[in-house]
Amino acid sequence: VTAEPLQPDTAGRLSLAPHRFAIRVYYEDTDFSGVVYHASYLRFLERGRTEFLRALGIGHRSIFAGADGESLHFVVRSMTIEFMKPALMDDWLWVETSIEALGGASIEMRQAVLRDAKPLIEASVRIGMVAQGKARRFPPLILNKLKSEFCQP
Amino acid sequence: VTAEPLQPDTAGRLSLAPHRFAIRVYYEDTDFSGVVYHASYLRFLERGRTEFLRALGIGHRSIFAGADGESLHFVVRSMTIEFMKPALMDDWLWVETSIEALGGASIEMRQAVLRDAKPLIEASVRIGMVAQGKARRFPPLILNKLKSEFCQP
Amino acid sequence: VTAEPLQPDTAGRLSLAPHRFAIRVYYEDTDFSGVVYHASYLRFLERGRTEFLRALGIGHRSIFAGADGESLHFVVRSMTIEFMKPALMDDWLWVETSIEALGGASIEMRQAVLRDAKPLIEASVRIGMVAQGKARRFPPLILNKLKSEFCQP
Amino acid sequence: VTAEPLQPDTAGRLSLAPHRFAIRVYYEDTDFSGVVYHASYLRFLERGRTEFLRALGIGHRSIFAGADGESLHFVVRSMTIEFMKPALMDDWLWVETSIEALGGASIEMRQAVLRDAKPLIEASVRIGMVAQGKARRFPPLILNKLKSEFCQP
Repeated sequence: VTAEPLQPDTAGRLSLAPHRFAIRVYYEDTDFSGVVYHASYLRFLERGRTEFLRALGIGHRSIFAGADGESLHFVVRSMTIEFMKPALMDDWLWVETSIEALGGASIEMRQAVLRDAKPLIEASVRIGMVAQGKARRFPPLILNKLKSEFCQP
Repeated sequence: VTAEPLQPDTAGRLSLAPHRFAIRVYYEDTDFSGVVYHASYLRFLERGRTEFLRALGIGHRSIFAGADGESLHFVVRSMTIEFMKPALMDDWLWVETSIEALGGASIEMRQAVLRDAKPLIEASVRIGMVAQGKARRFPPLILNKLKSEFCQP
Repeated sequence: VTAEPLQPDTAGRLSLAPHRFAIRVYYEDTDFSGVVYHASYLRFLERGRTEFLRALGIGHRSIFAGADGESLHFVVRSMTIEFMKPALMDDWLWVETSIEALGGASIEMRQAVLRDAKPLIEASVRIGMVAQGKARRFPPLILNKLKSEFCQP
Repeated sequence: VTAEPLQPDTAGRLSLAPHRFAIRVYYEDTDFSGVVYHASYLRFLERGRTEFLRALGIGHRSIFAGADGESLHFVVRSMTIEFMKPALMDDWLWVETSIEALGGASIEMRQAVLRDAKPLIEASVRIGMVAQGKARRFPPLILNKLKSEFCQP
């Protein structure tokens, strides 16, 4: 796919609340240093993106099964992540997800993990789409669902 | 700790509904064969036990921090698990947990993972308690909370 | 597939050394209680089985890609596991794997995780084979490879 | 800890080969899309850093147990990661790790995951040190070990 400038979210996004999803910290998420293992936050962020997309009517299993013509799935192209404060066993966290920029073949998402309204983690995640091992532009149906979230009337 | 016969749940348990906890299947839980990775179910079962105990007022982080006098944590002593049907990406599952037998130093739990009321996984899990690397009997406060769930008046 | 009595390993197995595979414990394997998370051992055992099968010429990716005619993969049918002693961060462990019984559609494996020749974990694992979501008998090529390990001349 | 400019590796580093560590891809690392789950690479990178530090005589369990006076552990402060190509089940990968910049309280590491000498993943990882939940400068013993790798005579 050709590179294409992402549309910056100049107007609308700031006024839209990010999608929020609650996560509980379990044994599996922690490590022997006593806090949450750093890679566990990527799992939390991925759950947040999955629920964000589900709320737009985009289901990973469904598009992988070919609901949009061919077997499609999202992939993470790149990620920048700041680990600011550790989460602890039994913590109740919120994952916030919003679209920062949207192109024909790429989404830039802004995500955070918060506890008591304070960010523990902040991340920028660039997402693309793949079919049969090759990068694909978003099919119109998926793109429209993403735009419905992203673009204000 | 000395071995001690567990109290079979002759009367009460059958009439008590098991504790139920909902789990969504995410990317992280699956493997390349297309279904949920077998070890992921142990994470699901552990979340179910954690929520079961939390509902009884027993918090892992709290007892580890010494709420009952010394730093305590539960450990799995043994487990038998049947993998009957696979769970799939995006599935909505229920973890059911109940106490089958309760001793002074050991709990036998019965657990299942279900989808649409059909069991995918069934497990028996024997749980003990550890402090400073050594097996411990349950302190009275914890034992009473466990009994409150287990024993019918 | 019809149930079929597994062939007990009466003669040969005891004289065959189990397959051994070394594993290092990393951050990812531990939990906040300070030791290895109980479900991590299932990942260790699975790596041991994978290397055991690889040594027999059976590769998961290869059989999934259809090397034996159709897309095949192994599944865990049931497992009994004893957690005897905890492993710790940075530990160097050995996973031992051997076939205890072999049928046309099922393998019973005996596994252990050891540190300094002392078993920390012991497990019995029953393995089957699946194609297109359905249980399958082992194809001759795979069965012969398994037998070559299991049956003494 | 006060912020402090990291020492850029002007002279020495380019001539030093990065530390290399081999990793096999197992079932546990993959997801239903058929390739390695994106968060699994963070586990691979963490193993690479652990082995890199071990080769310098720095052991996570040892410093956590107080070998340098108080209980210390490393934490990831931030990370930028590019996911360029997917790894597959059974792949044999190399994790390369080197120090890009070294300060009194922070290391900037450069890491890559490669298959057949081609990078699949590239990452910059900023590492700090923590004791009792607070950021700490590296103790002299640890700093000297890090410098021995970083600084050419």
